[in-house]
Parts: sequence; C-alpha cells; structure tokens
Amino acid sequence: MAINIPRGTQDILPGVSEHWQFIEQTAAEICRQYQYKEIRTPIFEHTELFERGVGDTTDIVQKEMYTFKDRGDRNLTLRPEGTASVVRSYVQHKMHGQPVQPVKLFYTGPMFRYERPQAGRFRQFVQFGVEAIGSDDPAIDAEVISLAMELYSRLGLKKVKLVLNSLGDTESRSAHKNALIEHFSPRIDEFCSDCQVRLDKNPLRILDCKKDRGHELIENASSLKDYLNEDSQHYFEKVKRYLDVMGIEYELDPNLVRGLDYYNHTAFEIMSDAEGFGAITTLCGGGRYNGLTEEIGGPASPGIGFALSIERLMAALEAENIALPINDQVDCYFVAMGEAAKEKAVALSFEARKNGLSVELDYLNRKMKGQFKAADRMKAANVVIIGEDELNTGKAAVKNMESGTQEEVLFDEILQYIEKA
Amino acid sequence: MAINIPRGTQDILPGVSEHWQFIEQTAAEICRQYQYKEIRTPIFEHTELFERGVGDTTDIVQKEMYTFKDRGDRNLTLRPEGTASVVRSYVQHKMHGQPVQPVKLFYTGPMFRYERPQAGRFRQFVQFGVEAIGSDDPAIDAEVISLAMELYSRLGLKKVKLVLNSLGDTESRSAHKNALIEHFSPRIDEFCSDCQVRLDKNPLRILDCKKDRGHELIENASSLKDYLNEDSQHYFEKVKRYLDVMGIEYELDPNLVRGLDYYNHTAFEIMSDAEGFGAITTLCGGGRYNGLTEEIGGPASPGIGFALSIERLMAALEAENIALPINDQVDCYFVAMGEAAKEKAVALSFEARKNGLSVELDYLNRKMKGQFKAADRMKAANVVIIGEDELNTGKAAVKNMESGTQEEVLFDEILQYIEKA
Repeated sequence: MAINIPRGTQDILPGVSEHWQFIEQTAAEICRQYQYKEIRTPIFEHTELFERGVGDTTDIVQKEMYTFKDRGDRNLTLRPEGTASVVRSYVQHKMHGQPVQPVKLFYTGPMFRYERPQAGRFRQFVQFGVEAIGSDDPAIDAEVISLAMELYSRLGLKKVKLVLNSLGDTESRSAHKNALIEHFSPRIDEFCSDCQVRLDKNPLRILDCKKDRGHELIENASSLKDYLNEDSQHYFEKVKRYLDVMGIEYELDPNLVRGLDYYNHTAFEIMSDAEGFGAITTLCGGGRYNGLTEEIGGPASPGIGFALSIERLMAALEAENIALPINDQVDCYFVAMGEAAKEKAVALSFEARKNGLSVELDYLNRKMKGQFKAADRMKAANVVIIGEDELNTGKAAVKNMESGTQEEVLFDEILQYIEKA
Repeated sequence: MAINIPRGTQDILPGVSEHWQFIEQTAAEICRQYQYKEIRTPIFEHTELFERGVGDTTDIVQKEMYTFKDRGDRNLTLRPEGTASVVRSYVQHKMHGQPVQPVKLFYTGPMFRYERPQAGRFRQFVQFGVEAIGSDDPAIDAEVISLAMELYSRLGLKKVKLVLNSLGDTESRSAHKNALIEHFSPRIDEFCSDCQVRLDKNPLRILDCKKDRGHELIENASSLKDYLNEDSQHYFEKVKRYLDVMGIEYELDPNLVRGLDYYNHTAFEIMSDAEGFGAITTLCGGGRYNGLTEEIGGPASPGIGFALSIERLMAALEAENIALPINDQVDCYFVAMGEAAKEKAVALSFEARKNGLSVELDYLNRKMKGQFKAADRMKAANVVIIGEDELNTGKAAVKNMESGTQEEVLFDEILQYIEKA
C-alpha cells in the first residue's frame, strides 16, 4: 500500500519549485542591497523558547505547536515562527557586541503550526523574514517595512496595501491595558474562554479574537491611539514621515494588534486586495519588539522585524496572474545511435555541462525517432546527432531546432558552436 | 536565564551563511546543466515511510529517528534522509507517467538523526542529493556519480577519491546472502546483538558493522564480487566504462556496502583524503535502489541517487584551505547630519537599493565621525555625505573610499555616478 504525505503538508514539485527559487533569490538579492545577512537556525528549539519568546497566552503556544520529547528526554518544539529563534541566536552569540550595529538578519525556512488545513494554510509553511536588532531609530522601522514592500513590488504585485498602527511604548500600553480591563471586566463572561484568560494577561488581544469578533464591547472599546503618550506619538510620526519620503503609501488601522505578545510601537501588515484572493488576505506581518531580547535572557536591545509566507505570496501572484520568469532551457540534446556513439555522447555531454551548457541525452535506449521526440519534449535548442558515420568522420551533425538548419561540426568544436548559436 | 540551542544543532551565522549560499547555488547550477529539477518534500513524514524506505534493520530506523505523535495521534518522523521522501512523492504524484523520462530530481535540506554529536556530526544536518528514477541504463549511474564529482571539482576540492562497488542484482545478492548465512551462522554468538538480528534479514550488513569491525570471520567472508552473475558483471563493466570515457578516476572496494537496505548494482562513496580531515572521511554516498518504488507502494521503477552532507563538504574545503568567493560589497554608505539630511538619505538609499546598489546608513544617531567609522567597518566603496549645506545646494559630497577623491554630485545623479565608479 502506498504511503501518503502527512496532512497539511505539500510537495513542491518541478515546474513550481523554480518559482520558489526565483522568489527566494529575489528576496536574498534585496537583502544584500539592504545589507541584511542570512542566519539559519535549527528546525526545532527547546519548547521554553517559544513559551517565552512568542508568549504563552498566544494561540500558537497554547494550541498549535508540534512539541515532542527527544531520546534524551528534552522538550523540543518544531519552530512555529522565526523571530524567537533569531533572538535566541542573537543572545547566545552575543551579537550586541559585534562591531557592525544594528545587527540586520534575514531567514527563509519552514515553520510548523498544527492548524486546520485550508486553502492557503498549511501545517508546514515557509517564511521569509528579517530582524533588525540594536536600534530604536524610527528610520529602521521604515526600512524594514520598505524591504517587505520592495519584495512584492519587484515580483510585480500591484494590489498590495500596507496597513500601519502604533502600539505605543510600555507606559502607553499599560494605561490602555488598564482601561480595557475596566471596560471588559463587568461583562467578560460573554466572551470565549480564551478571552477570559486574556483579560488579565493581555486584554489587547481580545480585540483580535476570531471567535468574539463583532461583539459590541469590542466595537466600542477604547483605542490604543487615545492612550499614546508624547514619545510614542512622536515615534509614530517619524515612521510615517520616512515612509512618506520613500513614497510608500499606507493606511492607518487602530485595531491592528498582531498575534504575538511582545510587539510595541510600530505594527504593520501587508495585505493583498486582489480580487478572488480568498479569505486570508494578510501576506506579511511585522512590528517592533523592544523587550524581547531580555525576555529570552539577553541584554536590552530594541528590535523590529517581519515575516511573510511564501505560500501566500505565491497565491497573491496567482491572483494577479503574474508569471515569474523561469530558465528551464535545454541547450543541447545528444542523439546517439549505437554503443560507441553513446560513449562519445556521454563524454561530450560531460564536457558541455562542465562548460555551463544544459544538456540531456537518452537513458532509455530509445531509437533515433524516440530520442528526437524526447529532445522536442524538453524544447532543446540544439540536437547533436552521433552515429557510426559521425564516429568515422570525427564530425557530428548539429541541428538547430528553431531554424531547422543542420551542420557538420568537428567533435572538438561542438561546444563553441553551440555557445555561439 | 538564557535559552541555548538544542544539543547537536548549530546556528549558521553571517560570515558563514554566505558560504552555504555559494555551495547551494553551485549545486543548483550544476543540476540545471544536468537537467535535475528541484523537489521539496516536508520535514516530517509518516514513520512507516522510513521503516519501509530506509529499512527496519538499519541503525537509522532502530536508533536514530526523531519520532513523535502529532495532535491528531499520527506517528510522524523528522526525515533522517531524503531518498524515501522523494520516492514517496514520485509514487504519490505518479511521476512514472510523466512525458519526460527518466525523472531526474534534486533536493537540499535539513535531515535529522539522534546520534552522539562529534566533530562534523550533527543531529540536524543538511544534505544535497539527487535521484534519477525510471532508467536502468548504466550510463545514468555514471551521470549521477559525475554530478557529485563535478560539485566537488567546481568548488576547488582536489583531494577527493571515488570508491566504487557493485552489489549485483537480486539473484547475485541472494546467492551471496546464502553463502554469508552459512559462513556466520556457526559462530554468530561472537557478534553483537545487532549483527545477530542482521544474520537472517541482511547479513551483508554484518560486513559493515562498526562494533564487530576486524572480526576474523568478517575479514575472510566471501566477497559479493565472487557471486556476481553475468548480467551484474556486465552492468558494472558498463558503469566503469562510462566513467572512463568521462575521465573520472575511481578505486574499487568490494567491501563497500552502504548502510541502507535497498541498494543493488552500483554503490559508491566519495571520500576526502585531505590531511587532517578527521575520522569520518566519507563526503558522499549513493547507489542504485531498484525495487524501492515497489516497497513504497508504487510501480516498478529502477532508481539511483546520492546524498552528500554540506557540513562535511565545508569541512573538506577547510581541510584543503579553500576560500569561497563571497560578495559582501557595500556600494554606498550615506552619512547624514541633521534630521532633514537624514530624510534625504532615507529617500536616496531606497532609490539606490531599488536600482541594485547595496547601501547602508546610520541607525544609531552617530555623529559624523562615528558614521564614517561605520562606513569603514563595512568596507563601503563610496560614502555620500549630506548635511545642511548639501541640502541647500542640492548636491551631495561623494567620497570614493579607495582613492580618497571627493566630488560634488547633484542628488539626482548620485546613483549614476556610483554605478559608473
């Protein structure tokens, strides 16, 4: 009996994997231009990292993690997101002491959340993200946002919008938190059990609850906006100003709070407003997380970052009918008749590949007609034909498949001939 | 308290991650030339896949797998190697019916084995591998081997050797197996408990046992070589002949059996013989696995592939003192004095990056001297200075850091100026 792929995961097959490569290369190239350097952290971490670094009141930690014990009885968890791991690495490797500051990092890799699979939502999905740690300059908030926008722009997406909010600093959040507790407390029994837990720990997240969405008290809850102190307002003004000078448009949404516990000041999402994109419109989410390095056991270092899902990016490309440029050109197909000719073809194709040409030959003992058919299927630009005659004369017949012209070319000159063609 | 990385895993940090990128890009480029297409399979699979596809008598399956239950009570395992997953995907997606045959695939990604960590051995490690499924032409065995050799060659490694053996077809292996059972049975109690299990299931693997290495009966056991039937001998001769015409040298080692259960015909390893490379000298292992697709529940399709560890490849590069070329050039550092100048720098750097330049600016409110120092540390090729005067004249001072020359350049012309420099 056949064994199938685990539920909620997918194989990325040839024909599609080339799109992934293109997106990842584009992201890496943009990161080079922005001077974000790649970091790769392990697929699993000690469970405690995510309890502390994502926040133990979050859905992720409470319901969605793949947690298991290894053979040494350690509690390990497949990473549900990237920031906690990057900050763990930042603290462990004492990056706050590096000469180049702030520390600007990017990552690409699989993340894991045990959720109900649906269109565009997988249990294993790939995130690209960046983190800039060690600066609380509002200009770097704008830089991080502009980097995400640049990726979408460079891939050709037109229907994306940036949504922005400020969660304020600790003082502002604390004032707002108290107001919310006062607001919700008298009628908290009308809310879901998750929200009842959130009330004391992080009442801001009640505003974000999927179950209680639409409840009157959520609709008329006071906005954090009204509690932002002067510093927080000033910080937010600066971020907006830098986005303005870069010509990046945004909408303000005072209800944007993000799912993780540690965000403060800048919070943002990038959404697709392409028609028919589906229910989940968020492509990218990010924000500032001053205080997270201390939570993970390191020194105070302000940070900001974002993460975006490649799967949703692909869906957005599809919704906008954007075809990525893919190079799957076969420069040359060797058609060989007879064993001696095959040996010659093997030797020549090895040389041709060494010299950068993409080459294929027959591995199914096909007759000449079948080999030509295979060359056609692969859309080979040239076919090199080697048979007994060709071995005797030391020349192969090279056929240009587009023009149909055919020439005799010395074995030693085939590479040059094809490279020029 | 700080949280550390899980034992046996590592962070790949900037300065090193660029080498990984270079190696993976080189591998992907070679695969394009050889027409192997990328496949990405999930990090975990149903445990049964590896029991069947790796073999339940192997150390990997018996001792080294990360196995856990998900929240839906499924038995899942972090993949310990890549072939079983690729073959699962081949079967599930009915790739034997695709128009282009054989199906040639490559993958790069993390694998997981719970082993004692030591130099060059990690619990999470990255493998690059290829699989060619659907052909039993000895020429494709040679192609697969040549692809691996080409990667090492292109990265500059000189001290690698290819070791080759034939495990023969089913008939040959069966004859040899019976001879081995007869050979070991009378004194099997002198062997480790693993070997006692192996005796009936796969006695060939006794020859490979790490614990019983050196036992007299292993030394004088009959070689599979003596049991190869005519077909198997002919097949092996052909593989060697194709390697010869490509000019690829090899050593024959009749004791090379590989750790997985399903190999037949061609088996090979590529080892480093660089001085001081350490105890584990195998860089790459591969072989033919006709019969594996059926084991996984698909139709009969002969296959061959290899896998190599990027960590060991990096160690081999280090042992041979090979420095990979890395592009970490900063084209331009913007030095800005005052808030208005900073806004200009933010706008210009956004434009410059959009145009492909790598750019950095100050995010720590440093004075001019500090910003210059930062530009120096990053080895910026140019520094663009913007202050109050420059804002008034509409020109920035652009300093070439190598030559030391400085020129006034209109804001609108800075990009062109730097691109030309």
